[in-house]
Amino acid sequence: MSNGTLILMRHGESTWNASNQFTGWVDVDLTDKGKAEAVRAGELLVEHHLLPDVLYTSLLRRAITTAEIALDRADRHWIPVVRHWKLNERHYGALQGLNKAETKEKFGDEQFMLWRRSYDVPPPAIEKGAEYSQDADVRYADLPEVPLTECLKDVVDRLIPYFEETIAADLRAGKTVLVAAHGNSLRALVKYLDGISDDDIAGLNIPTGNPLRYDLDENLKPLNPGGTYLDPDAAAAGAAAVAAQGSK
Amino acid sequence: MSNGTLILMRHGESTWNASNQFTGWVDVDLTDKGKAEAVRAGELLVEHHLLPDVLYTSLLRRAITTAEIALDRADRHWIPVVRHWKLNERHYGALQGLNKAETKEKFGDEQFMLWRRSYDVPPPAIEKGAEYSQDADVRYADLPEVPLTECLKDVVDRLIPYFEETIAADLRAGKTVLVAAHGNSLRALVKYLDGISDDDIAGLNIPTGNPLRYDLDENLKPLNPGGTYLDPDAAAAGAAAVAAQGSK
Repeated sequence: MSNGTLILMRHGESTWNASNQFTGWVDVDLTDKGKAEAVRAGELLVEHHLLPDVLYTSLLRRAITTAEIALDRADRHWIPVVRHWKLNERHYGALQGLNKAETKEKFGDEQFMLWRRSYDVPPPAIEKGAEYSQDADVRYADLPEVPLTECLKDVVDRLIPYFEETIAADLRAGKTVLVAAHGNSLRALVKYLDGISDDDIAGLNIPTGNPLRYDLDENLKPLNPGGTYLDPDAAAAGAAAVAAQGSK
Repeated sequence: MSNGTLILMRHGESTWNASNQFTGWVDVDLTDKGKAEAVRAGELLVEHHLLPDVLYTSLLRRAITTAEIALDRADRHWIPVVRHWKLNERHYGALQGLNKAETKEKFGDEQFMLWRRSYDVPPPAIEKGAEYSQDADVRYADLPEVPLTECLKDVVDRLIPYFEETIAADLRAGKTVLVAAHGNSLRALVKYLDGISDDDIAGLNIPTGNPLRYDLDENLKPLNPGGTYLDPDAAAAGAAAVAAQGSK
């Protein structure tokens, strides 16, 4: 059995990335810049001869559309697709919809960074029925309970068992698997793959639209710890930009 | 168990629809007009409160993209997707890539209509390795034999067993199923649903980008024989345009 290749792809810039708002499970669109990032991601897959056999996405438009655009560009629009809410972004609770700079100003640097980067402290829960709550969204009708907020640990707790039950089997079968998802759901996955501690994961940022490749051994341990960005220069610049969010 | 609803959607105008070429399994893009048709199809789904629970498509870009655009417009981009080659357009054999008007002029009206509309006479087979052959296309690597030409009967023979094994189960479970496919694969399905004879199917044309709704009883027989176009005026005009192909 040959080893699998895992490609992690954070969606391109969304409208709320552009307006600097906490997004979470709110289902916003890509910007034109985000669509261009998706095209570029597809070109990177072609240039690196990395042709996915199967796609996994969240249920959120910005990840779905990024994958559709990138795969169309790579002539892999026809591969099987699996979509699951467990790949969704972290639910940002009552912060969803708020401007990041205003939130930082209002609550202070320390509280702001705690909500954004602490491993196990979730933001305040969003009220059921609130404008940016998903408790009545039909796509989550099968869930026993729709989250009202999540910390990164909550994302790890929902995502890693799903990864082990589904994606891992495709990887063990030697497939090249593309996961199109979000800043925090991908951080959860990278934490697991690279064995990053609860503290150290705070410092890890994942740039948009730049595929991150992991070559895995038979135990799904990375042969290239930390993964390999297909565009390493853009990765360095993009991670710095993510880290700077909250600045005006 | 409630009864299912089946929505058949032919892709919007493709580049080879626009240039009047036989397409078959050649994987051409939508035109801008075709993308606008897909948006309109999504609006029609919303206006008629027809929200698909699951999508089936072919492996061809023009059907996949039409569905992606329409479902995004209808806010159903997140539903499960199943893609299968058995929903592909009829393979047009050695005619793939040829201009329809030139072919009609070269071979005469009778031969032209026989290739286009006879039930069981396929066009000449395409040569393996020819520019517009799919015998080396990776997406069909699992097929025991990639078709080199097909008549409509061949499409019926591959598609109806697939329908019965997969789509029918979703319909019997009461789901609303969207099938995004092609002029001839949808003709094959309509022939089966409406019990149209081998002779009479020649006269049936399906317009692009106009969803066709079938309400089915527990035996998957149409409660509305012939189906119901969501935009009936456009359907009449569109069917006439399809019938006129081959004219310059």
